[in-house]
Amino acid sequence: MAARAPQKLNSYLVVMAGGSGTRFWPKSTSKRPKQLLAFGGNGQGDCGEGETLLKQTLGRFDGIVPSSQKIVVTTAALEPAVHEQAPGALVLAEPQGRNTAPCIYWAARTVAAIDPKAVMLVMPSDHYIAHLSAFKSTVQKACEWAASHDDLVTLGVQPERPETGYGYLKVSANSEGGCKKVDSFVEKPNLERAKQFLADGNYLWNGGMFLWRAEVILRAFDELMPEMRKVWDGESGEVARAYPKMTATSIDYGVMERAKNVVAFPLECGWDDLGSWTSLESLAEALHARHAAGTVTGGDALAIDSTGNIVDTPNRLTALLGVNDLIVVEHGGAILVADKRRAQDIRLIVEELKKRGSNLL
Amino acid sequence: MAARAPQKLNSYLVVMAGGSGTRFWPKSTSKRPKQLLAFGGNGQGDCGEGETLLKQTLGRFDGIVPSSQKIVVTTAALEPAVHEQAPGALVLAEPQGRNTAPCIYWAARTVAAIDPKAVMLVMPSDHYIAHLSAFKSTVQKACEWAASHDDLVTLGVQPERPETGYGYLKVSANSEGGCKKVDSFVEKPNLERAKQFLADGNYLWNGGMFLWRAEVILRAFDELMPEMRKVWDGESGEVARAYPKMTATSIDYGVMERAKNVVAFPLECGWDDLGSWTSLESLAEALHARHAAGTVTGGDALAIDSTGNIVDTPNRLTALLGVNDLIVVEHGGAILVADKRRAQDIRLIVEELKKRGSNLL
Repeated sequence: MAARAPQKLNSYLVVMAGGSGTRFWPKSTSKRPKQLLAFGGNGQGDCGEGETLLKQTLGRFDGIVPSSQKIVVTTAALEPAVHEQAPGALVLAEPQGRNTAPCIYWAARTVAAIDPKAVMLVMPSDHYIAHLSAFKSTVQKACEWAASHDDLVTLGVQPERPETGYGYLKVSANSEGGCKKVDSFVEKPNLERAKQFLADGNYLWNGGMFLWRAEVILRAFDELMPEMRKVWDGESGEVARAYPKMTATSIDYGVMERAKNVVAFPLECGWDDLGSWTSLESLAEALHARHAAGTVTGGDALAIDSTGNIVDTPNRLTALLGVNDLIVVEHGGAILVADKRRAQDIRLIVEELKKRGSNLL
Repeated sequence: MAARAPQKLNSYLVVMAGGSGTRFWPKSTSKRPKQLLAFGGNGQGDCGEGETLLKQTLGRFDGIVPSSQKIVVTTAALEPAVHEQAPGALVLAEPQGRNTAPCIYWAARTVAAIDPKAVMLVMPSDHYIAHLSAFKSTVQKACEWAASHDDLVTLGVQPERPETGYGYLKVSANSEGGCKKVDSFVEKPNLERAKQFLADGNYLWNGGMFLWRAEVILRAFDELMPEMRKVWDGESGEVARAYPKMTATSIDYGVMERAKNVVAFPLECGWDDLGSWTSLESLAEALHARHAAGTVTGGDALAIDSTGNIVDTPNRLTALLGVNDLIVVEHGGAILVADKRRAQDIRLIVEELKKRGSNLL
């Protein structure tokens, strides 16, 4: 946590928006993955009800990062749609998705070429934030820390429940300037361990949100993934040639879990990862938007002896009779009816439709 | 079973098509009850795949009843739609639905005014017949019997399974000219009794299909429901005035169960009453049109770990994941997802929508 002399804070936002869209099928498709979908803001904290997740994500950093310094990394296939949702942003179109390490390496080289001392705010494009001002205030502090310390800063979400769907950060008990040392990265726990983590108080959700100066993350790459610079420079920074040769791994696995200079700012802002249809339930909880049928995120619903369902059927009324814990979605010529416990298996449907050569993907 | 001297057989078809359409919601609505819907013929026995049930019903009697002698009784609200489906048929539009006894009384008076000795074939408009030639052959025999005997003739369906959803006719063991005396009408049985009925062999399903000469049924009305003639003649046969005063009951309860001259022709033709969404299952069985998902009567379906479902989502693909024994229907801005065991309770949804003043009815 060695501090540098303070200087004017220059920052770049790097939004990762390369997801391929299987978990929210049929609402999400390959041409319109979830980052390009609107799940409804709350009209209070987050920016823009009815805006796409990508647009909401970009808007969240207004006043923190100059709009001309917002970068979106996506895949070539999504580039036109991303340009539409992110006018004015610099778009880096990956020739193919190769997980987050190559994506962040490319972004870091891009930012470093402009200003190696600039802070990069690396953010996924599929998060929900209930309380925007709390989020911004933590980001601001983390940003200042990253500008003045040679640390890899992450935002660790203060757990609200014993969640088994996220990885955790084990952090130190004591903090300095609101910031805690990260001792280790912990894989998704079972329920028992998740309960222990919640009780312990020194575990935060790993939300995949990072802040660091470009020079600091590049130094970490050079130490922990030296092959990245070798490939990149070997191909004279030509992305199309370099990308296929880069190590396709996550930034967590490639860098963060092995680096010694990782710190976390605890984040309390009603955060949720929109990972699958079931994650909309906690979102609805946060918005106090529960319905007799369960969670209704699109269209209207009528429930008779039916609870715990997730309904997204825009412009339609869905009537439920004697059914519980289902996901019911209608979109673009397709209807999905799934057991909620199978939310992670929706990709099986997408795979089957691919085999059939369906145009519903 | 006293026989009359044979004479030229003159016949009128009377199709009862006044149903209000709640059990097949959202496919059926008040403006388009099930008799005005197509559930798909089989391209073999029954007439006209994709034709409405009413049109199929009328077509079934081609060659038995002259087309100019086909009568449809319906409600005023449905009259235009019925005219469209039954061009050339005489349409009797009831001022309001008052069950089958008034409907049949009016039709009998109408036929009697033309030819009291003509045979009336009274048929519901929501049946499915798999083997048309077998049906026609039995109808022909029953028609001839009715022309030459002072009996109330009914077609009793030979049971194919221990069905608890239908009433039964207890018939005599011996028969004459293919015809059996009906000893009694039996209410819908529980499963145990239904199994006994099936084993016994002398029980037939009451399909609500009747044949009699106009004069014979009017005589039965005069004996068992004398108030009908009193009201009718008292209002000089003016339907609008007479109808509200007529006894609103079923022909079964008002006449058939109490008459002594009831006989039945056993019918074996792959008959089914299309009473609710679940009745489409036996129809699909008959058509050998089972799908991995269960029964798909509209649109396409994809099933992963899902069986026993009934899917009717025209022009759509419905993907099912880990769900069993559901009814999934999409129609005109509404989606229904119901537990199959609750098929009879779909009216609860219709009632709730009525309360809300919904336009989806």
